[in-house]
Amino acid sequence: MRAVDLIHKKRDGGELSAAELNFLIQGYSKDEVPDYQMSAFAMAVFFRGMTAAETAALTLAIAESGDQVDLTPIAGIKVDKHSTGGVGDKTTLILAALAASAGVPVAKMSGRGLGHTGGTIDKLESIPGFRTELAREAFINQVNTIGLSVIGQSGDLAPADKKLYGLRDVTATVESIPLIASSVMSKKIAAGADAIVLDVKAGSGAFMKTVEDAEALASAMVEIGTQVGRVTSAVISDMDQPLGYAIGNALEVMEAIETLKGKGPHDLTELCLTLGAHMIVLGGKAADIAEAKQILKQKLENGEALAKFAELISAQGGNPAVLEQTELLPQAALTVEVTAEEGGYVGSIQAEQLGLAAMLLGAGRATKEAQIDYAVGLVLRKKVGDAVAAGESLATLHVSSNNATVQEVAERVRKAFGIVSSVPAPKPLLLSIVTAGGIQRV
Amino acid sequence: MRAVDLIHKKRDGGELSAAELNFLIQGYSKDEVPDYQMSAFAMAVFFRGMTAAETAALTLAIAESGDQVDLTPIAGIKVDKHSTGGVGDKTTLILAALAASAGVPVAKMSGRGLGHTGGTIDKLESIPGFRTELAREAFINQVNTIGLSVIGQSGDLAPADKKLYGLRDVTATVESIPLIASSVMSKKIAAGADAIVLDVKAGSGAFMKTVEDAEALASAMVEIGTQVGRVTSAVISDMDQPLGYAIGNALEVMEAIETLKGKGPHDLTELCLTLGAHMIVLGGKAADIAEAKQILKQKLENGEALAKFAELISAQGGNPAVLEQTELLPQAALTVEVTAEEGGYVGSIQAEQLGLAAMLLGAGRATKEAQIDYAVGLVLRKKVGDAVAAGESLATLHVSSNNATVQEVAERVRKAFGIVSSVPAPKPLLLSIVTAGGIQRV
Repeated sequence: MRAVDLIHKKRDGGELSAAELNFLIQGYSKDEVPDYQMSAFAMAVFFRGMTAAETAALTLAIAESGDQVDLTPIAGIKVDKHSTGGVGDKTTLILAALAASAGVPVAKMSGRGLGHTGGTIDKLESIPGFRTELAREAFINQVNTIGLSVIGQSGDLAPADKKLYGLRDVTATVESIPLIASSVMSKKIAAGADAIVLDVKAGSGAFMKTVEDAEALASAMVEIGTQVGRVTSAVISDMDQPLGYAIGNALEVMEAIETLKGKGPHDLTELCLTLGAHMIVLGGKAADIAEAKQILKQKLENGEALAKFAELISAQGGNPAVLEQTELLPQAALTVEVTAEEGGYVGSIQAEQLGLAAMLLGAGRATKEAQIDYAVGLVLRKKVGDAVAAGESLATLHVSSNNATVQEVAERVRKAFGIVSSVPAPKPLLLSIVTAGGIQRV
Repeated sequence: MRAVDLIHKKRDGGELSAAELNFLIQGYSKDEVPDYQMSAFAMAVFFRGMTAAETAALTLAIAESGDQVDLTPIAGIKVDKHSTGGVGDKTTLILAALAASAGVPVAKMSGRGLGHTGGTIDKLESIPGFRTELAREAFINQVNTIGLSVIGQSGDLAPADKKLYGLRDVTATVESIPLIASSVMSKKIAAGADAIVLDVKAGSGAFMKTVEDAEALASAMVEIGTQVGRVTSAVISDMDQPLGYAIGNALEVMEAIETLKGKGPHDLTELCLTLGAHMIVLGGKAADIAEAKQILKQKLENGEALAKFAELISAQGGNPAVLEQTELLPQAALTVEVTAEEGGYVGSIQAEQLGLAAMLLGAGRATKEAQIDYAVGLVLRKKVGDAVAAGESLATLHVSSNNATVQEVAERVRKAFGIVSSVPAPKPLLLSIVTAGGIQRV
């Protein structure tokens, strides 16, 4: 078998077999297939696409390129959750506790990540004492004991994905649905879950700008899960504005705590209930989504979800007192209000601009080595549809000192708000549900 | 400027500027743009194509990547000729002498090449004493003195083409008309000619299998020439069977000599007259193709073309006596006849199979380091349309000894002939003429 012939076959619209895709990915992992052949192949895939069978085979080949986590010592159906990423996305913090409180074992490995804010691991580490590096055995034991653990990714999961993604990034081959779908799913499969719930964002603040594109990506991922025997569902939601109000590490932990107390923002609560409902249905703890939502609402109301979060914090060395005394979390030295120049209604919020603002304040990493300031970030005061008077606050910046950068960021945040003269038509948060049965608009 | 953005632009169907293409090619030459970006770019070009302006700019960028030959010390319009390659193609040997005898200065640099037989340089070196390595000054002087010189390529012409072609070969990006056209034309432009005549083959024995594909390639090359101020014409001819009868180095020199004496095969003579006519029209030595053909026919009949070839041989150290005593050329030790198993008419000849046969006998190089045997090869006894009786010879193999390989080659040659029961419809040799004015079917 020669890589050039496989590139040629894909270029001319042919379908590659599992053996052929394995040859490519294994060869690429071992540096036997060079970058220049893999990039030509990726570009051919960009133009020709892949069949469902090809995408599944590619995903498995990538998943098998490194360590594969064995979660079988954990009793029950392990359900993992993945988000395609968005601004102010703190759902994992809430969902882990929520699903575990309903009896679904959550054995979650999470990343740090580059971008607007830190990843889930960074957010958890803003809780004083919280440790995210656990040995494999301690991790498994903790899930078997309290039903829940969230740790940083260890081991070498899907190294071929890391290598291939780096190559795609510099060869203009990122925007290919089979390649994106196999990248996401290979890591989830290597991480050992039995079932997967996908939180797919659509809109100006997301990678997929339209609901149609998001549905296509979600369908490809659900199809992969189906083909490899990991039941997968996807919830597509709007990311035209940030989720909730807080953007920043400790700020998002505070908002997650409020949500676990049943007092969270409406959009964040609704999305968590929906994603959580899919998790507990796949985990066999509810018969259908309606029943599952009822169970989870109860867990928020009766304090069991919050109690589970307290157990998680305690088990991993953190101070659970933060749940009642959020001032124990890192606090920024001062706050700066961003005020509206004119009155009206918030017609739109450019989520990406707010994410960038948070990063510029120090909440996220621009490079791998950059240090995060857990305390900084911003909290929205207005969301789309809200009335605003001239001079009223649109958002509060949490900063370490007031300087020229902060002034620039304030201006950026102000411009991210589109003020209109009449009430904008309300937009739904939830757009579609994608399962093996198909796409269902909601 | 970043390479990834240029790949992205081409991928999405955009048109790159000359500055952008220069950035890519210069960067690639200096190893600043890596192979993996260039191969992704080539694949994007495969799918998206290039505009005429892009193709011309790419060609110039490649031409400027290395040495550029200055032919201005030679008086007159220097016309170069290029063939897209075919089996039994000895036209350069004939055309150089023919065009020079009509007063067009021929300053030709030629290659050795891999494949069925050697290149023009190998064929000339089969003439005892013929030297193909001349210093630049001696080369120019010879053209100014006798109007003609043919030497091996020296210097570093279009190194970016060599590098890019090597990459395309292993990334399934060879079959792209703008990339093929720019590859050919960049070398011709770097070689310094004022005008270019292209000998483009179409058919089973050629790279372009159909006349439409050959016309598309020819149009792209003519368009490049037009855009960069080098007048270019292309003659498209049939390569469904070999040109002439001889395949092999010394064997082809003998056939070229016969043709220069006016006694050559009809197809070879006709193609040389047509290509030569375009050369002398572009060289300003005839008003139109009809007049040009008349002039050239005379040069064959009155011996001036042959005399010019004798001058070339003498000037470069060879023995011109070979023109009358072809036994002075390398001779194979023995000949083996390939006979027809059944009678009928020759309906088809697979040119590529015969080329491969010649290579297996030792007439061509399978690798750069391989040695060529000038004497070996094969001579057809029958061509398409000829009647053949069972047991009659189809071709004569010229070999150094009769062994198992020769028996295998004989079988391969026999199978290359398709014998049919009725006279096949005659096919024309010349198919189209492509000039800046457009495509003209003949």
